[in-house]
Amino acid sequence: MSQPLVIFTPSGKRGRIPRGTSILQAARHLGCDLDSVCGGRGICSRCQVTPSFGEFPKHGISSTEMSLSPWNETEERYHRLRGLEPGRRLGCQAQIIDDVVVDVPACSQLHQQVVRKSLDERTLVMDPAVRLHYVEVPEPDMHHPNGDLERLLIALKEEWKVEELDVDLPILRALPKTLHDGRGSLTVAIHQDHRDLQNRLIGLWPGYFDEGLYGLAIDLGSTTIAAHICCLTSGKVVTSSGIMNPQIRFGEDLMSRVSYAMMNKGGSAQMTQTVIEALDELFLSLAKAAYIRPDQICELVVVCNPIMHHLLLGLDPSPLGVAPFALASAQSMTVSAREIGLTSLAASSCVYLLPSIAGHVGADCASVILSEQPHKSNKRTLIVDVGTNAEIVFGDKSRVLACSSPTGPAFEGAQISSGQRAAPGAIERVRIDNRSKTARFKVIGCDLWSDMDGFADTTKVTGICGSGIIEAIAEMRLAGLVDKSGLIGSPQQTGCDHIVPDGRVFSYRLYESRGPGEANIDVTQSDIRAVQLAKSALYAGARLLMDEYGTDSVERIVLAGAFGSHISPLHAMVLGMIPDCPLEQVISAGNAAGSGARMALCSMAARREIEALVPSIEKIETAVEPKFQEHFVNANALPHAIDGFPELTKR
Amino acid sequence: MSQPLVIFTPSGKRGRIPRGTSILQAARHLGCDLDSVCGGRGICSRCQVTPSFGEFPKHGISSTEMSLSPWNETEERYHRLRGLEPGRRLGCQAQIIDDVVVDVPACSQLHQQVVRKSLDERTLVMDPAVRLHYVEVPEPDMHHPNGDLERLLIALKEEWKVEELDVDLPILRALPKTLHDGRGSLTVAIHQDHRDLQNRLIGLWPGYFDEGLYGLAIDLGSTTIAAHICCLTSGKVVTSSGIMNPQIRFGEDLMSRVSYAMMNKGGSAQMTQTVIEALDELFLSLAKAAYIRPDQICELVVVCNPIMHHLLLGLDPSPLGVAPFALASAQSMTVSAREIGLTSLAASSCVYLLPSIAGHVGADCASVILSEQPHKSNKRTLIVDVGTNAEIVFGDKSRVLACSSPTGPAFEGAQISSGQRAAPGAIERVRIDNRSKTARFKVIGCDLWSDMDGFADTTKVTGICGSGIIEAIAEMRLAGLVDKSGLIGSPQQTGCDHIVPDGRVFSYRLYESRGPGEANIDVTQSDIRAVQLAKSALYAGARLLMDEYGTDSVERIVLAGAFGSHISPLHAMVLGMIPDCPLEQVISAGNAAGSGARMALCSMAARREIEALVPSIEKIETAVEPKFQEHFVNANALPHAIDGFPELTKR
Repeated sequence: MSQPLVIFTPSGKRGRIPRGTSILQAARHLGCDLDSVCGGRGICSRCQVTPSFGEFPKHGISSTEMSLSPWNETEERYHRLRGLEPGRRLGCQAQIIDDVVVDVPACSQLHQQVVRKSLDERTLVMDPAVRLHYVEVPEPDMHHPNGDLERLLIALKEEWKVEELDVDLPILRALPKTLHDGRGSLTVAIHQDHRDLQNRLIGLWPGYFDEGLYGLAIDLGSTTIAAHICCLTSGKVVTSSGIMNPQIRFGEDLMSRVSYAMMNKGGSAQMTQTVIEALDELFLSLAKAAYIRPDQICELVVVCNPIMHHLLLGLDPSPLGVAPFALASAQSMTVSAREIGLTSLAASSCVYLLPSIAGHVGADCASVILSEQPHKSNKRTLIVDVGTNAEIVFGDKSRVLACSSPTGPAFEGAQISSGQRAAPGAIERVRIDNRSKTARFKVIGCDLWSDMDGFADTTKVTGICGSGIIEAIAEMRLAGLVDKSGLIGSPQQTGCDHIVPDGRVFSYRLYESRGPGEANIDVTQSDIRAVQLAKSALYAGARLLMDEYGTDSVERIVLAGAFGSHISPLHAMVLGMIPDCPLEQVISAGNAAGSGARMALCSMAARREIEALVPSIEKIETAVEPKFQEHFVNANALPHAIDGFPELTKR
Repeated sequence: MSQPLVIFTPSGKRGRIPRGTSILQAARHLGCDLDSVCGGRGICSRCQVTPSFGEFPKHGISSTEMSLSPWNETEERYHRLRGLEPGRRLGCQAQIIDDVVVDVPACSQLHQQVVRKSLDERTLVMDPAVRLHYVEVPEPDMHHPNGDLERLLIALKEEWKVEELDVDLPILRALPKTLHDGRGSLTVAIHQDHRDLQNRLIGLWPGYFDEGLYGLAIDLGSTTIAAHICCLTSGKVVTSSGIMNPQIRFGEDLMSRVSYAMMNKGGSAQMTQTVIEALDELFLSLAKAAYIRPDQICELVVVCNPIMHHLLLGLDPSPLGVAPFALASAQSMTVSAREIGLTSLAASSCVYLLPSIAGHVGADCASVILSEQPHKSNKRTLIVDVGTNAEIVFGDKSRVLACSSPTGPAFEGAQISSGQRAAPGAIERVRIDNRSKTARFKVIGCDLWSDMDGFADTTKVTGICGSGIIEAIAEMRLAGLVDKSGLIGSPQQTGCDHIVPDGRVFSYRLYESRGPGEANIDVTQSDIRAVQLAKSALYAGARLLMDEYGTDSVERIVLAGAFGSHISPLHAMVLGMIPDCPLEQVISAGNAAGSGARMALCSMAARREIEALVPSIEKIETAVEPKFQEHFVNANALPHAIDGFPELTKR
C-alpha cells in the first residue's frame, strides 16, 4: 500500500508522506506555509486547517473523514476552552491516514498576504522580524548544573533550531521569574536581524502567550509625529495617533533646531530628551487605546529626516547645519528601545531606522520611495512629499534621483496672514467665479460649500490652511485678479469689488467677517510672495532632478505627505508648483512615509529592498547646486492662465 | 640577482622578499610577530626593530648598513620628537635592499611572553581581546554622501581587514567630534570576542593615541574586593588596591545577603547599586594612582562566587539560596560597563565574567583552576581557596572535581573571642614550648617574635587572626593542652600555668595584657569548637571529592586565597584541616583567583581554555550529599599528636 498523498490548498504543495504523520509535520516537510507557535502541543491553534472531504477528480483522489485520525482529546480540550470553527482541525493533532486535501486558511499562514489600501492595491507579504516561540525548559538539576539561560538556549535549539541567540541583561534578569511562573514553560519573542540573521531574544512571557505581538510605525516629522500600532500577524493598523513634535519650542524649523544645538551647551541632549519623553507618552496612550499592554509592542520602525534622526538617537545635529552636511551614520540601524532612552516599552524591544539617503534627504524620503516604488516604474515619476522641507524624488526603473528643497512653512499655513494649520474652521477648497470674481469655499469639518444653504448657520471660519491658500491663489490667477508676476491688480484693473487696498498694494477679500467672533480672511500680496517662494523652491528642486536625468517631461506625479495629499493637482499646476503632466497621471499617495514605515515593520524583505536601493539613488544637494538658484528664480512666475486647462473651463 | 633574504630573530622566521619591501611588510608576509598600531605611517614606533650587521655564517649571509634603505625623514622626525634607541629602525620605514638579519625586541612583539611570578614560572602569551588601530578616514563628500561611521568602517576594512564591526550608540555619538578633532585621523580600540570573533568598537581617540591601554582584573569577594590595573601590552600589573565589599551592611555572609534579597522588595537591586558604586569609586582611585585616565581602561575581568555574580549583574540571587541552586546563567559573559551601570569607565568598555561551575561554585573557583591548572597535573592535586566559603578542587589530568563548603567566618577571625581580621596588631604565628607550655608569637606589622628583645617596646597586640588561631590550636594540641576531641585540659591535667578557668571549661592564655591599653588574648573552648566546625567542613569537602574520585590519598596540596596563602601547612595538617600529604608538596598559591582573572584579561586563549574546561568539571553539591555530613562528623577530631611530624620534633 503506497503512502497517502496530501495536497495543500491554496499553495498547491503536494506529496506523499508516511501514514500517521501530522498535518503540521507534513506541511513543514512539503514546504507549505503553516504557522505554529507552540511547536505542535495543541496550545496555540495557529496551525488550524480545514480538511476537504469528497471527490477531487482534478487531483485524482477522494477523501473522507477517515482520511484523518479522529478528533482527539487535545482538540476537544482546545475547542472547549477557546472554540474552533466548524470543519477546522488542529494541524499538529490530526494525522494523515489516507489521501486528503487540506486547506490552509489565511489566519494560519505565517506569511500572510496583506492588501494595501492604495490605488494600485499592491500586496505586502508578512515577514516581520519578530517571531513567537513556545518552549518547555527542563527543570534545573543541581547535579548537572546549568543556568536557566543555558537550558533555555538548548530547548530553543532543539525545538526551534534557533542558534546564536543574543540575550541582554534586562531579559536575563526577567528569565528566572518567567520560568518559575510558567513552571518551566514560556513563550519567547525572537528578533531576527534581516542583514546578518543574528537572533536576539527580546521578550519573555510565562507559559503560552497568545495576546498577540504588535509593532509601531512612526513618522517622526519636525512638526508632527504620527504613530500607528500594527498587528504583526495580520499587518493591520489597529490604532493611529499623532501629536505635535514638542521640539517646536526649540525652533519651528529644522535649521533653527540645529542652531539651538550649536548655541546651547547640552541643547542637543535637551531636544533628544524632549522627543523621547513625547514618544513614550504617545506610545502609552496608543497602547491604551488599542487595549494592549506596552510589552506586546516589540518593535518600532521610525522614519524621519536626518536632523530628527540625529536628535532621536542623541547624535549632535550640528554637522548637518553646514556643508558638507555629514551624517554621523547613514545606514539603517537597529537599536534597543532602552538604548535610546524609551521607557514605555519593554527594555529590549527593537527600534529600526530606515537608511538616510544624504545629509538633507532622510529616511523619510527612503520610506516614500519604498512605498511608492519609483524604481519599478516604467513611467518617469516625480514624487513630492511636502512639509517644511520638501522631499523630491524623480526617476523610473532605470535611475532614481532625490533631493530635498527648503520650501519653508508657507504650505503649512504659516507665514500666511490668515494662515493656520489644517484643522476645523480652516478654508481648504476655494473657487472664484470668473465673472463675479466672488469666492466660494469649503471649510474643514463641514461638507457644505460656503454658498450653500445652511453653511452660514453651522460653520465658523477661522483661517486658511495650506491647500486653501494654493487654491485661492491659483483661482485668483485664473480669474485674472493676479498677473503672471504674482501682482494683485487694483479694483480698476480687475473690475472686482473684493479687491481691497493694503498699504501700497492690494489684497483679495476671500471672506468678509459676519460679526465680532470672526475676522476677515484676505489673501494679501505678501501671502502670494510667500507661496511664490515656496512653490519656486519645490519646482526648482524637481527641475534640478529632471535636468540631472536629462529630460524635461514628467509622465506621472505622486503627491505625498499630509499636506501633499490634500493639494488639488490642477491648482498646483496652475501655480507652477509642479511641472506639467497629464492631470490623470497626478495621484495622491497619502502618508507615503508612514506607509513605507509600516511596510518595513511588517517585512524584512522590504528592509532589505530599501537598504539595497539607497546606495544607488543619485543624491543632489540643492544648497550648493548653482542651477538650483537659476531654476528658483525662473520659477517665480505664475505661468498658467485659463487657456491651458480644459478641465477648468468646464466648471 | 635573486631577491634578498631576511631572517627575523628570535622567531627564526625567514624568507626571500622583493627588494624595497619594508621590514614591517616582510614580517607580515613571513608571519613574524611584529606590532603596528599606525599601519605603517611612522607614528606609533610599535614596529621598531634592531637590524644586525656583520657576518652570519650560521645563516650563510652577511649584511651591512647598506642592506637597508637609509635612515629617512620619518624616522628622523620620530627620533627628534620621541627618541629611538641607538641601533633601532622603524620597521615600516626601513626597506630591505640586501640580505639582512633583523631582531624584533620584546616590546615590538604583539604576542609578548609574560613570565608569571610563581614557583613554576609559567609563561603567559599576551593575547588581549582589545587592540588599537590607527586609521585615516576620508573627508565627507556631499555629492557622494556617506555617514562618518560608514567611512570609518570602510577605512578599517581596507587598512586593517576589520569586518562586521558592532558599534553602539555612545561610540557613534562620540565619532563625529573625534573625527573632527583629529582632522579625519583617529585611533580606535576594537574588542574581539574570543568565541564568535565578533568585533566591537569600544574606544575612540582623535589622531594617534599612544597613552596605552589598560585592563582591570577584579576578584569580587563577599568580604573584600581586590582590583589590579594591568597594562594590556606588557601584561604587567601597574597598580593594585582593595576595599571592603560595602554589601557587608546587608549581611556578613552570602546567605544572609540572599535572605536580604528575599525579604526586602528591591533589596537585590539595592545591593547591586551598592557594589557598583563601590567599584566605580575603586576604579577612579586606582586610575588616579596609576596616572592613567579612566578611558584608557577598556576591559574588566571579574571573578566572583555565584551570589556576587548575580548581585553584580542585577540578577536576583534568591534562587541560589534554595535547592536546586539554579543560576540565571552559568556561562561566561561579555557585557558593556554601561549595561551593568558602571559610570567611571568609558560607556562601551567591556566586562568579561568567567563561567560559573555550579550554583555554589563560582567563577572565582574557575579562575583558581585556570591559574593552578590541576587539569594538566600528573599528581592528584587538592586546591583549597578558603574564605567564608571554601572552594575545593581535586583532580589531575584525568578528571577534575569541585565543590564549595560552608566553612563560616572562623578562619577569617570572626566568631573567635579575640579574633580580628588580618591587620597590624593581629597575632599570625604561634609556637608553644613543649616543656614550659608558654607561647611565643609574631604579630602582623612586626618582624620580631614576642620573646625577642625590643618586641614589647614596639608592638601592640590587638587580637588574633585566622592563621594565628589555627597555629595556636595546633600548637596547643602538640603541647598536650588539648585532647583529640578538642577539649582543653585543666591546669592539673596539663601541668600548665597558662590554663585559666572559663566558666565550666578552660581557656589557654596566649598573651597576658601588659596594661590598660591591651586585653588578654585567650584561646577559649568555644574558639576551638568554632575552628573545629570550620576545619571539619573544609576537610569533609575535600574527602567528598576524593571519594568521588576514588582515592584516599593526595599527592599535592595548593593553598590559595588571601587567607590560604598565610596558613602554615604543617599546622593545618596537625589540625586535620587538610588531608595528609608530604609537607614539601603543600604550596601556597597566593591570590590564585586574582591571577586567573589577570590571565583571562591578558589572553583570549585563557578564556577559551577555562570555558572549554568548566563543562567537564564534575560538580559535587555538598549541601545535599549525605556523605558530606558523615565526613563532617568524623572530621571533628584533632587527629595528630607530635609523633607523626618529624619536622616538629626538630624545632
